[in-house]
Amino acid sequence: MLDPADLDAADPLAFARGRFRIPDGLIYLDGNSLGVLPKSTPARLGVTSEQEWGDGLISSWNAAGWIDWPLSIAARLAPLVGASPDELLICDSTSINLFKLAMAACALRPDRKVILTEEANFPTDLYMLQSAAKLSGAELRAVPRSELSAALDQTVGLLSLTHVDYRSGERHDLAGLTGEAHRAGALTLWDLSHSAGVLAVDLARANADFALGCGYKYLSGGPGAPAFLFVRRGLQQLCTNPLPGWFGHESPFDFDTGYRPATGIARFQTGTPPILAMAALDEGLKLFANVDTADVEAKTGRLGDLFIENVGDCLALASPRDAGRRGGHIVFAHDAAYSIVQASIERGVIGDFRAPNLARFGFAPLSLTYSEVAKAGAIVRDVVLSDYWREPRFAERKAVT
Amino acid sequence: MLDPADLDAADPLAFARGRFRIPDGLIYLDGNSLGVLPKSTPARLGVTSEQEWGDGLISSWNAAGWIDWPLSIAARLAPLVGASPDELLICDSTSINLFKLAMAACALRPDRKVILTEEANFPTDLYMLQSAAKLSGAELRAVPRSELSAALDQTVGLLSLTHVDYRSGERHDLAGLTGEAHRAGALTLWDLSHSAGVLAVDLARANADFALGCGYKYLSGGPGAPAFLFVRRGLQQLCTNPLPGWFGHESPFDFDTGYRPATGIARFQTGTPPILAMAALDEGLKLFANVDTADVEAKTGRLGDLFIENVGDCLALASPRDAGRRGGHIVFAHDAAYSIVQASIERGVIGDFRAPNLARFGFAPLSLTYSEVAKAGAIVRDVVLSDYWREPRFAERKAVT
Repeated sequence: MLDPADLDAADPLAFARGRFRIPDGLIYLDGNSLGVLPKSTPARLGVTSEQEWGDGLISSWNAAGWIDWPLSIAARLAPLVGASPDELLICDSTSINLFKLAMAACALRPDRKVILTEEANFPTDLYMLQSAAKLSGAELRAVPRSELSAALDQTVGLLSLTHVDYRSGERHDLAGLTGEAHRAGALTLWDLSHSAGVLAVDLARANADFALGCGYKYLSGGPGAPAFLFVRRGLQQLCTNPLPGWFGHESPFDFDTGYRPATGIARFQTGTPPILAMAALDEGLKLFANVDTADVEAKTGRLGDLFIENVGDCLALASPRDAGRRGGHIVFAHDAAYSIVQASIERGVIGDFRAPNLARFGFAPLSLTYSEVAKAGAIVRDVVLSDYWREPRFAERKAVT
Repeated sequence: MLDPADLDAADPLAFARGRFRIPDGLIYLDGNSLGVLPKSTPARLGVTSEQEWGDGLISSWNAAGWIDWPLSIAARLAPLVGASPDELLICDSTSINLFKLAMAACALRPDRKVILTEEANFPTDLYMLQSAAKLSGAELRAVPRSELSAALDQTVGLLSLTHVDYRSGERHDLAGLTGEAHRAGALTLWDLSHSAGVLAVDLARANADFALGCGYKYLSGGPGAPAFLFVRRGLQQLCTNPLPGWFGHESPFDFDTGYRPATGIARFQTGTPPILAMAALDEGLKLFANVDTADVEAKTGRLGDLFIENVGDCLALASPRDAGRRGGHIVFAHDAAYSIVQASIERGVIGDFRAPNLARFGFAPLSLTYSEVAKAGAIVRDVVLSDYWREPRFAERKAVT
């Protein structure tokens, strides 16, 4: 078994832990749902609200650079996903961005009437793709993961997948499937919500077309943080934003009655950027400055391995055992998964439950130590083996998020 | 001329001024673009970030009530626009909400292929309506304001207008035009961005169908604050949200692969609510608690009248002289409007310039006193009559917002 103290001593990301505020005694393994708070964020919100908004008022759109934040904050994300800064934008929500990009992609392949996805994709992806397909005169075809390659026929205009499955943690081969899609004449749209910030995503090397992701998970942007979107540079000028708000106009403050899209990625903006929320996301992204994504991915995998080893065989692993095939989280299947999660929370280990029978634990590599992850695994093991989870108070279902 | 000191002494809204942070020496007449900061907002952002997010983490979705904020914060807005709390939602941006509601409306009138608007509508409204029309198989017809009534024929499925014009400040007769549209068989969609918080908007009395508006102007929700939307109760169950994200699902945390819309207004949610930004908007809306909208509208009108009287005839009024036909802002036309605005800013009066020749000044009734508005009018008058604006440093165009 790996020695957690040795791993911590050699951890090139160890410096980051102290930059997060983590409640005493808590081992938080739910950063895949809501990332922990960077210590710098409250003060940044103070500056943005009091100095920039309160004192600077309207002049801060220029003086504080607010007008550029959708692009300038996105630039901090670029190395994490293997993109150029001019291929990324911070805006709207994951759901909205999925709609924008799926519609844009369909318009580029008018003769191909199928959006292909997998049936176990995250629900909001399925819902938004369904709507985008309908409005594009296309059809959403959702197949089992194992049938994706075979389904890539000449009717498919867009392959839209989530890189890391929100339940199993299983990772798609992003580069491989992008290549397959391209050889079949289709474009690709990747949801990186569960991979940005934990894996060494490389959109450029994969020659990926479109991507997007969430700001509030591993990027620690805060609850409901703005999302990001990516469009490969070569496609940008060909694309139409189906939600063409004034901030995507070539010159918003000309107040033209006719829409002229901005050059490049900026055309994917819609409404006025949410400045306070973007300030918080900026603080989360700053913590990744000068971090090597190879180190990030390596630590993510080792944290998961360590947890699996410490939990042992008392729970059935429902994620790939090979870290190279996983994202940042791991699930175990057990009929009493709900109660096991609740009992573990009472013992200070925060995971979450996913119906019908999954206990899920996420491993944010910047804010976790190997030692606490090993300890958390041992706690969960004890909760299961001691039958602690059978206490009646853990049986009652509460609303979970 | 009205005596500003007398008006301040009798002002039922005078209590509110002290609740805003306004920089010393500034007379801020741009609350129609970005409302001033409520003093309570920075501390609220501290609580939401440090205690709720930092300490409560994922549990705050339930424990802090985050999950309900899109509806519970909207409830504070209800009396300001004459709606029931269950007809309002805080979500997304004004542009996105316009798209959602225009698409929903078009789907309710499939045999009528025209969305009618006015050609001087705010640009983002025109752009989003254009896209919604195209995706609905409809046509956007934009006519001069004077031809709206005549254009309401049997081809029109939706009349979409901005209640108060962003340049002239001219107010539409919301109830009258809604009635005309209904008699012609059309639905109505009102953009209240420039009227919520300054006028006694009464959507119920007008029997309005759809509405939306901006959180960052008179509602003081902060730069890029989340927007709101309204759907008349009787229409809600008939409506389809074209952006059907997981938060609009009947039961988001069942993670269904099939979309089932939530009952009522909640179906118009899309992605995860932006909690930090919503906390700020909540503080802005709290300042309207127990405020009578009749007092709000009366003060807005009197502030405008007082400013017009103090500016006098040195500038040509390009807004209605009758306060009953205006919203919260006033524009004056002058070939040197840009320089006059810049020179006034240097003298402590913040207005803004709108091309080609308009100087615009907004009158937020909660944060302004009659005395300072009278003084601001006198300052602008002096800037014009003394030719102060001719100083060369006021000639150079900078980016304006």
